[in-house]
Amino acid sequence: MTYERPNIQRAAGYVPGEQPEADNLVKLNTNENPYPPCPAVMAVLRDFPPERLRRYPSPTAAKFRDVAARVHGLTPDHIIPTNGGDELLRLVITTFVEPGAPIGMAEPSYSLYPVLAEIHNSPMVRIALRDDWSLPADFARKLNDARAQLAFVVNPHAPSGTLTSVADLDRLAAEFRGVLVIDEAYVDFVAPKCNYNSLDLLRTRPNVLLLRTMSKGYSLAGLRFAYGLASPSLIEPILTKTKDSYNTDAISQALATAALENRPAAAQTWQAVIAERTRLTAELARRGYTVPPSQSNFILAQPPAAATSPSPPAQPPAQPGGTSSSPTPPKTPSAREIYESLKQKQVFVRYFDQDRLRDKMRITIGTPGENNALLAGLDQLSAS
Amino acid sequence: MTYERPNIQRAAGYVPGEQPEADNLVKLNTNENPYPPCPAVMAVLRDFPPERLRRYPSPTAAKFRDVAARVHGLTPDHIIPTNGGDELLRLVITTFVEPGAPIGMAEPSYSLYPVLAEIHNSPMVRIALRDDWSLPADFARKLNDARAQLAFVVNPHAPSGTLTSVADLDRLAAEFRGVLVIDEAYVDFVAPKCNYNSLDLLRTRPNVLLLRTMSKGYSLAGLRFAYGLASPSLIEPILTKTKDSYNTDAISQALATAALENRPAAAQTWQAVIAERTRLTAELARRGYTVPPSQSNFILAQPPAAATSPSPPAQPPAQPGGTSSSPTPPKTPSAREIYESLKQKQVFVRYFDQDRLRDKMRITIGTPGENNALLAGLDQLSAS
Repeated sequence: MTYERPNIQRAAGYVPGEQPEADNLVKLNTNENPYPPCPAVMAVLRDFPPERLRRYPSPTAAKFRDVAARVHGLTPDHIIPTNGGDELLRLVITTFVEPGAPIGMAEPSYSLYPVLAEIHNSPMVRIALRDDWSLPADFARKLNDARAQLAFVVNPHAPSGTLTSVADLDRLAAEFRGVLVIDEAYVDFVAPKCNYNSLDLLRTRPNVLLLRTMSKGYSLAGLRFAYGLASPSLIEPILTKTKDSYNTDAISQALATAALENRPAAAQTWQAVIAERTRLTAELARRGYTVPPSQSNFILAQPPAAATSPSPPAQPPAQPGGTSSSPTPPKTPSAREIYESLKQKQVFVRYFDQDRLRDKMRITIGTPGENNALLAGLDQLSAS
Repeated sequence: MTYERPNIQRAAGYVPGEQPEADNLVKLNTNENPYPPCPAVMAVLRDFPPERLRRYPSPTAAKFRDVAARVHGLTPDHIIPTNGGDELLRLVITTFVEPGAPIGMAEPSYSLYPVLAEIHNSPMVRIALRDDWSLPADFARKLNDARAQLAFVVNPHAPSGTLTSVADLDRLAAEFRGVLVIDEAYVDFVAPKCNYNSLDLLRTRPNVLLLRTMSKGYSLAGLRFAYGLASPSLIEPILTKTKDSYNTDAISQALATAALENRPAAAQTWQAVIAERTRLTAELARRGYTVPPSQSNFILAQPPAAATSPSPPAQPPAQPGGTSSSPTPPKTPSAREIYESLKQKQVFVRYFDQDRLRDKMRITIGTPGENNALLAGLDQLSAS
């Protein structure tokens, strides 16, 4: 006898990236910021009064909303704080999608979206990205044809790191008839020279909701604090009706507020990550890797051998498991093999066993030392 | 143009108790523990390492599950940690109730249950409690007749504080064909002499899920940490499929673990609350209030005038708004009037504008000083 709903019973569930507990490892698999939260945030934590733990927190994280409004040049009614970005992703479905109605997404993308849709009994409309990971021109039309009530777009895109322009997002929002959720979990790592400013969309597009998180840009993945930015007509029902009554806790409210108030300190880490992203991309390219231009705190790296696999050279295939008698170069390891080998060396990167990603690894940008450890690990592999 | 689902548009949403921010007030309205968290918990907070904020937390709060299993004499697969009890209440609906299928509850009870059912498109089967707030004998039959897939029972009951025996719960669980959620948010305040031990139910009733929270018993309402106890067959789908991927944060995991490890310190606050509950109940009774026997950290108090209202004396009613010419005693204030007057004096209690509760106030047990302030406030009202 089971009490689960049939669709929950069938569901596989989301599998988070590995979170090994050891301290002596190079963890480049779940896109954390490599630098710690700023001292002002830690000071708030240290001095947190017991009285505020004893009492219920502000149900709406009122102070955080005030500070976020000031930072973004909006009013607080444009802001909904949530228990991590995942809560916001769930809440937009709960609020705007009738159970069973279709939900759209670009493919490949964050693997949590289909899991959330499945829980909601909703079919997922998966629209393939182009070869360069950009949105196809008929993306909105396909969403409308499928009657999607909501669609997810990650920008910068995960797992490729590529950036869609605000102009393209604006065209998409204008044409799409449902709620467009732009998951900007990594937006803090966009190079300033890109002049990316999606906040302008909020003034003219009532169907756009931007997701921001303190997890990456502010080094607070452990805290679970994110927020949505949208027109008040989208924010109000989430804030007053569908979110859990006290969805963010008193400590996370205080720390997230302090982090946003000390944005320049966080921005220093963004600059460091951007510099290392440039260096690591160049170092990998020098080793024959294919790496699309990333505006995020990770890169999607395709090892040299796998890069040529879509168009194999015109020669007889090697016998499976056997050795070829022809004078082919020594076998280069696959992305999966590299991922496994790095793991043996305590260097964790992310491998996705799914279409278009099996020949690639997603690598979080670490400190210079961590990135050097990664490069050293790769060099050892190709030398062995 | 609105993007909300029609049922969300119609919904009123849950209204949390007032959370005034001032420090110089007597806050007896949302059932917080009047004593601060124990020093060991505050020490963990003070020494929390920045590195653990930077990284993602354990997705399952693994250490907390180990400690909770040890404390309750169970294995960790019986335990699901959540972001406050409200998240668990939502998750049991998500996991075990098909959207639109009926959900049962005793009436009156926690006003969040119908809000959660409404979001899920589910009709709420409301079954009235008896006059003494106990469950009617045909509670399970009515749930089954209505085809409820899940039912909520609060024990000790809110807002009356009365306790249902484990034997009665066992009979209910045996007869009810759905998932029985026993919301034990206040269980820590049950007097030890009651020998209440609902954990026994888990060994024989695969459809029972107990909700526990750190908010009240452990003085951590600000933290948002609760957990469910149930057979692994109920826990597993919530843990691996329906909860948000990282639903509890690193700090709350560490503090909740420390709090549970220091249970004897919390138990001292339970004893103090129980002693004050006995005293406050007696003091109110001495003033003519009707107070059902509470095993919780609050009492439901019915003022003297309102207590007689169900059977008014056989005399002509006073003219509305006017003064009666007959020699009736001076008008005694209603529960609502007392609530409003106390609020003017910075003493907050909870008033529910709903059937069977309009003539009562729910009063959280405070420190001796807070309870004295409440009594003084009441005495001033009747003297004025």
